[in-house]
Amino acid sequence: MVDFESIRNKSIISAKKDIRESISEDNYIINAINNIDELTKTANTLTKRLRDWYALCLPELSKRIADNETFVKLVISKDRKELFQELKIKESMGKDLDKRELKPVKELALQIKSIYSLRDELKKYLETIMSSYCKNLFSVTGALLGAKLIEEAGSLKRLAMMPSSTVQLLGAEKALFRHLKTGARPPKHGTILQHTLVSSAKKNVRGRAARSVADKISMAVKTDYFKGKFIGDRLNKELEEKLR
Amino acid sequence: MVDFESIRNKSIISAKKDIRESISEDNYIINAINNIDELTKTANTLTKRLRDWYALCLPELSKRIADNETFVKLVISKDRKELFQELKIKESMGKDLDKRELKPVKELALQIKSIYSLRDELKKYLETIMSSYCKNLFSVTGALLGAKLIEEAGSLKRLAMMPSSTVQLLGAEKALFRHLKTGARPPKHGTILQHTLVSSAKKNVRGRAARSVADKISMAVKTDYFKGKFIGDRLNKELEEKLR
Repeated sequence: MVDFESIRNKSIISAKKDIRESISEDNYIINAINNIDELTKTANTLTKRLRDWYALCLPELSKRIADNETFVKLVISKDRKELFQELKIKESMGKDLDKRELKPVKELALQIKSIYSLRDELKKYLETIMSSYCKNLFSVTGALLGAKLIEEAGSLKRLAMMPSSTVQLLGAEKALFRHLKTGARPPKHGTILQHTLVSSAKKNVRGRAARSVADKISMAVKTDYFKGKFIGDRLNKELEEKLR
Repeated sequence: MVDFESIRNKSIISAKKDIRESISEDNYIINAINNIDELTKTANTLTKRLRDWYALCLPELSKRIADNETFVKLVISKDRKELFQELKIKESMGKDLDKRELKPVKELALQIKSIYSLRDELKKYLETIMSSYCKNLFSVTGALLGAKLIEEAGSLKRLAMMPSSTVQLLGAEKALFRHLKTGARPPKHGTILQHTLVSSAKKNVRGRAARSVADKISMAVKTDYFKGKFIGDRLNKELEEKLR
């Protein structure tokens, strides 16, 4: 007699094993980049709140300091008097809050600072993984853009299987389907716009730049997936020559 | 000759002084409650990410532990083996991650924990302010609901000037205007639903409960604004008797 129960149990165990063994660097990279994005968003929202709150004490600071990280650092490191001197303000619309009211504001600032530093650590972690797992991609795109591309493709394997024209448009799916459906102008680049050579290109050659960068990314990622040698430096050099 | 320049300067200085002097407990309360809300939201989103990430290692945990704070604490305090024993799991679909991969996950968990504790501190801060600034409101509503009402009204003064029917519907503006415009059924309660006596009331008497609670809140807040005595205990007692 066939023991269905035992067959069922065995296949469940084997499926669980398959799932367990499918966990790889792809998953680490995707989780890390998702969290980096989330932490950046979080830090920005909380800094907005901090600006609001600190405005009770010194509204002039928020106007002068546009950069979020600098703003948080200043709130933590300097008190109101020092900031008066540094910004050369004579008259402020803010109230000189006493310690009890300032304490939660400073604590919020410290929290935001620690979110920033966690984000930086995750970046480093991402760099460590990528420099061993996909060193060519890493050298062409850097950690953040490379991880983002892997996240959008789903895995290094799927990214390696894509033609470079797909890589060029990853992240621009909405615009692409709008083009296919309504005949609007096709997108020239997706996430790849984050690459400095694309974003710094003049608008009329940006499409061309995106195409060249996508070419090299595609070559890099294929080399990584099929365990090729390190060709990152060569790719970067060719790219710079082409786009000069 | 009239010196317009000096008049202008003087009036700017006087306006700045007015702004400075208008900063009061209302502003502290509004900032604190806004930040508490924001931090709660932030902690929830990040915990979702943490659940995703930790699922690589032990997907069974996220299913078993529904509460976010408990989940975060478990990830920090126990390692995989201990969790296996505690949850009585024999076979997991997760991979036994090595230290390098676990470190960022644990750090994320620590970050979330510190966001939770900042939120708790802000709650305490809120309680300190409210127990001196508006002790009657505080005793009827507690810190969070009271602060939320002040935030929605704009200040304690404006809340004190509102009739209790307005207090009852604060936070339900959308439903109220839908009622006025389209004749849909009017809302029975707004933010006040957070009050335990309203939320625990049966559905058919919830409108009545909201009305009674709003009555008492209105009395409490008027007493606070016009520097009356402490009547919070009496109000609470009357409320409980009425809604029993």
